[in-house]
Amino acid sequence: MSYLVADLGGTRIKAGVFQEKKIIASSILNTDNKESFSKVIENLDGVFEELITSVNCQKSEINGLGLALPGIVDIDRNHVLAINDKYNESIHFNFDRWARDKWNAVLATDNDARAALAGIWQYGVGKGYDNIITMTLGTGVGGAALINGKFLYGKHYQAGCLGGHSTVNFDSFKCNCGNMGCVEALGSTWNLNNIVQSHPDIAQSSLNNYDNVDFAVLFDEYRMGDTVSKEVTENVLKAWSSGAVNLIHAYDPELLVLSGGVMKSADIIVPFMQNWINKHAWTPWGKVQIKISQAIDDIALLGLGYLVDTKIKNKRKN
Amino acid sequence: MSYLVADLGGTRIKAGVFQEKKIIASSILNTDNKESFSKVIENLDGVFEELITSVNCQKSEINGLGLALPGIVDIDRNHVLAINDKYNESIHFNFDRWARDKWNAVLATDNDARAALAGIWQYGVGKGYDNIITMTLGTGVGGAALINGKFLYGKHYQAGCLGGHSTVNFDSFKCNCGNMGCVEALGSTWNLNNIVQSHPDIAQSSLNNYDNVDFAVLFDEYRMGDTVSKEVTENVLKAWSSGAVNLIHAYDPELLVLSGGVMKSADIIVPFMQNWINKHAWTPWGKVQIKISQAIDDIALLGLGYLVDTKIKNKRKN
Repeated sequence: MSYLVADLGGTRIKAGVFQEKKIIASSILNTDNKESFSKVIENLDGVFEELITSVNCQKSEINGLGLALPGIVDIDRNHVLAINDKYNESIHFNFDRWARDKWNAVLATDNDARAALAGIWQYGVGKGYDNIITMTLGTGVGGAALINGKFLYGKHYQAGCLGGHSTVNFDSFKCNCGNMGCVEALGSTWNLNNIVQSHPDIAQSSLNNYDNVDFAVLFDEYRMGDTVSKEVTENVLKAWSSGAVNLIHAYDPELLVLSGGVMKSADIIVPFMQNWINKHAWTPWGKVQIKISQAIDDIALLGLGYLVDTKIKNKRKN
Repeated sequence: MSYLVADLGGTRIKAGVFQEKKIIASSILNTDNKESFSKVIENLDGVFEELITSVNCQKSEINGLGLALPGIVDIDRNHVLAINDKYNESIHFNFDRWARDKWNAVLATDNDARAALAGIWQYGVGKGYDNIITMTLGTGVGGAALINGKFLYGKHYQAGCLGGHSTVNFDSFKCNCGNMGCVEALGSTWNLNNIVQSHPDIAQSSLNNYDNVDFAVLFDEYRMGDTVSKEVTENVLKAWSSGAVNLIHAYDPELLVLSGGVMKSADIIVPFMQNWINKHAWTPWGKVQIKISQAIDDIALLGLGYLVDTKIKNKRKN
């Protein structure tokens, strides 16, 4: 069984060949905001062809395709229901026709965070757990939920994926999504400058020397002892932690897996969040454990391999 | 098929006989805080016996039993895992033995909010919907979740039931559960006096004339134009609404069913919450509708009838 898998991210696409539970070759495709979605897929086809040549595989040997997309995906019909601006034409794209006509292969599509969770569960730090929630902290806050060994989808395929849009302080910043005081609005890169600039003492802070404050800068200045950085960091940590508690109360998991570039400061983040969860999550059975997932790119490709595998097995059963 | 069903509430137990999709007789049993749990069950047995006599039924005709409990229930083993103080001995009670030795009947136990949701779904305002969340507003904030026609339980049977403990303002009141700024801490009877007394202008408010402020008082004074009542009411409505958005983002439902005595002021509550949800919940497929469920007592008994029915049918299948 050889599958072609790709994770369509905001700035680039990671594509790979999945064979016998491994990604045996992979490649990065940079994308351009001006390209049509058909053009994106055409370029991806090219990368896929190069990849199968590189591993001495024939096109006819490819029996599965997996795509992870940064949006809400109807996995039963392979339709994108809602997605960020960059790929908005994908809503009208016929993925099934592409899979059949171009590759003659079974296609599994899913939300990118669910694909990553599949990888974490089957091949990563979530191995051995059947109840997992994830939070990816960065530009936004993403995630997914696995309950008793099944991914949560919901009626419109958006259950489990909107943990970043849990309100943790309705008296605070408005989020891009339209909601008030989401985890994302209080703790992600897109709003961090705004958060920093709204601090009453910003003029006295070392953060004032930066044109653009990202989490790397914020945590550096926090380590240097800047007071405003300390307060902003603590508020961000509280937002992430409260969001984690909301997910724990919603989905009843054993394990919370954190990822994202910001995990370079795991020494600050994990102890704070673990302590908050231990103190504030109501889990009479025990404590939810936090683990970190590195290399989230590869893990999503592996997860797609698992999702394609499952789809092919289910097709045989029916 | 005749089943005996009972909803064990904080101050009283409602017991009934379920036959052919109806509660054909019911009775209220007041409970005493000093009684042992065995004594509570003994009294319930007495009420059940009276009820079956009243409907000319024989004990041998009873083939099912249903119990709703205000706690976390392992429905597969009929064990109470965690429960409020009043019934804390129930954690050690052998429900299966009682059902077998005393009644020789199949027993279904569940959390009370799930039993109510089962009734709402099968016999109430949720009929025809397979994706429902509930919020019962009152002494606390309870609820449950139905996703694609299945109740959400989670690994430790607490998924779906902790909507009242979603953080909506981590900078606010601490909750009984140990968490910060839960929906419950900001919007339920147990903390309402504390909320009112913490308002900076309480001395100038008509609420200051009451020894005890409950929602009936609060909404009355709000209608009379008292400024503090208006501010407190709006904050409560925002807490409930933000909690509702968190549940919508978590479970992806079509329908939110509200209940509780406070629904006497549905004219204030429902328009506010529907408007907030329409504005702030991210549901690209459409809008989540709000409905009110009256007579939540009977609906829980009907729901128990459905749960017992399902358990008996599943036993036959296996």
